Amino acid sequence: MTNINHTRQKIYYHHTDSGGVVYYANYLKFLEEARTEFLEKRGIFIKDLISHGVQFVVSRQEIDYKSPSFYGDILQIETRISKFTRVKIEFEYEIKNQKGAIVCIARTIMACVDMQLKPSVMPKDIHEKLF
Amino acid sequence: MTNINHTRQKIYYHHTDSGGVVYYANYLKFLEEARTEFLEKRGIFIKDLISHGVQFVVSRQEIDYKSPSFYGDILQIETRISKFTRVKIEFEYEIKNQKGAIVCIARTIMACVDMQLKPSVMPKDIHEKLF
Amino acid sequence: MTNINHTRQKIYYHHTDSGGVVYYANYLKFLEEARTEFLEKRGIFIKDLISHGVQFVVSRQEIDYKSPSFYGDILQIETRISKFTRVKIEFEYEIKNQKGAIVCIARTIMACVDMQLKPSVMPKDIHEKLF
Amino acid sequence: MTNINHTRQKIYYHHTDSGGVVYYANYLKFLEEARTEFLEKRGIFIKDLISHGVQFVVSRQEIDYKSPSFYGDILQIETRISKFTRVKIEFEYEIKNQKGAIVCIARTIMACVDMQLKPSVMPKDIHEKLF
Repeated sequence: MTNINHTRQKIYYHHTDSGGVVYYANYLKFLEEARTEFLEKRGIFIKDLISHGVQFVVSRQEIDYKSPSFYGDILQIETRISKFTRVKIEFEYEIKNQKGAIVCIARTIMACVDMQLKPSVMPKDIHEKLF
Repeated sequence: MTNINHTRQKIYYHHTDSGGVVYYANYLKFLEEARTEFLEKRGIFIKDLISHGVQFVVSRQEIDYKSPSFYGDILQIETRISKFTRVKIEFEYEIKNQKGAIVCIARTIMACVDMQLKPSVMPKDIHEKLF
Repeated sequence: MTNINHTRQKIYYHHTDSGGVVYYANYLKFLEEARTEFLEKRGIFIKDLISHGVQFVVSRQEIDYKSPSFYGDILQIETRISKFTRVKIEFEYEIKNQKGAIVCIARTIMACVDMQLKPSVMPKDIHEKLF
Repeated sequence: MTNINHTRQKIYYHHTDSGGVVYYANYLKFLEEARTEFLEKRGIFIKDLISHGVQFVVSRQEIDYKSPSFYGDILQIETRISKFTRVKIEFEYEIKNQKGAIVCIARTIMACVDMQLKPSVMPKDIHEKLF
C-alpha cells in the first residue's frame, strides 16, 4: 500500500485572522483531518481504538510556516508516516497551495496510550495495518 | 443577590478573521465563558452537575451583531438570567466595546438534561441558587 | 435555478468538546461554509464583492439545537435563501446526521455593507444572481 | 527588566475536545495570548508595528505535550524570550496546571516581515525594548 495520502482543504473565513492569512493554530486542525483520513484509508478508525482499550494522543508537534495562505485558497495536504513502532507513530506533512507553493511542512508524533493516558503497546492488528 | 454579572474579553488574533473583525462564531465562546462565570458566582459549577446526574445544554441561541469589534479591543460582557424554570434557563447578554458601543446582544436558552441528553428536572439545590 | 444547496460536513475532534458532542459555536462555522458554497454555485464569490466596494456581514444568527452530533458523524446541510432584498439576504439551514435525525435548524441574516461597514445597496448583477 | 512573564488561562468547554482534554491546537492560542502580553509589558503593541511598516509572523512552532489538561483547569503560562536578533525573536513557554504538573513546553520563532510578508529588519526602538 502506498505510504502517502492526499487531502484537500478549502480556506473559509473561520480559518483566517485579521492579519489577512490563515491563523497559525488552524493548520493543526488541517493536520488532524489529514492524518485521520490517512488512517481511515488503512482501516484504522480512531473511535474503534477504544474497543481495544487504547487511543492515540499527540506527544509532539513541529511546524514550519513557509508562506501564508489566504481566504479562498485550496490547499493540498500530503501526509505520510515517516516512522512507527508499537508505541509511537510519526507523521510528516507537506501543505501546498493551488499554485504549488509550499505553505507549511510539519511533523506530529503520536503516542499510543491506554484509557488512563498511560503509554501502551499498540494492538498487533492495528500495528500491522501501518505497514 | 444581583442578577447581573460582568466579565471582560480582550481580543487577540485568534478571535478575528480576514474581514478584519471578530469572527461571528467566536462571540458564542465569549458567551459560554460569561455564563460559566455567572453560574460560578452563584456556586454552580458545570462539572459538579454531573454528580447530580444532570447537565445543561444549549437548546437555542440568538445573537444580533450591532457593530464589529477588532483586534486589541477590550469587550465588556453583561450577563443576566432573564427567566428560568426547573427545566430551562434563559440568559441574556449585552457586549460593549471599550468606547461603550454595543457590539452584540444575545440570548441563550439552556436546557437541563440527564446523562443520556433527555430533558430532566434541575436538582432543587441548583434551582434555588438561581434566585 | 434550484433554491437549495446541499453540503456535507464530517466531524473531527476539533469540532467537539469534552461534553462528547459538537461544540455549539462550531455549527456557525459549518453555516459559513454552507452559505459560501450556496453563493459560489450561483457565481457569487465573497472576495469578488470587494471589487464592487461591498461586503456581506452577519447581522443576526438564530440556531435551534435539536439533537447532538458526535465525532465521526457525517452531517448533511441543506441551505436555502428564504428571502432577500437589495440590502439583506436571509439564509435558512437544516442540518441532519447520517441517520436522518435533525441536528439543528438555523437562520442567518446577512447585510450588504460598504468597506466602512455602513449599510449599502447590493450591486444589481449580484442581486440578480440570487433569483 | 525581568525576562519572564506569567499569564493564566482558565479552561472552558470551547478549549476541549471529545477526548475529554484540551485540544492540541488550542494551546497555540494560549501561546499567542502569552507572547502578546509579554510584548505589551515591554511596551510593544502588535498593532503599532504596522505604523513602522513591519509585522511579526510565526515561522516555526514546536510543542511537546507532557500531560493533558481538562475542563475547569487553571493553567499558568511562563513565557520568556530565549534569543533574538534584528530579524527574529524566539519565545519559550512552560505551561503548568494548578497542581504544578507540566502540561506543555513550547517554542515559537517569530520573524519580522514587511507588509508584503518579506523578511525585514526590526525598527531599532522595538529591538531595544526586547533587552
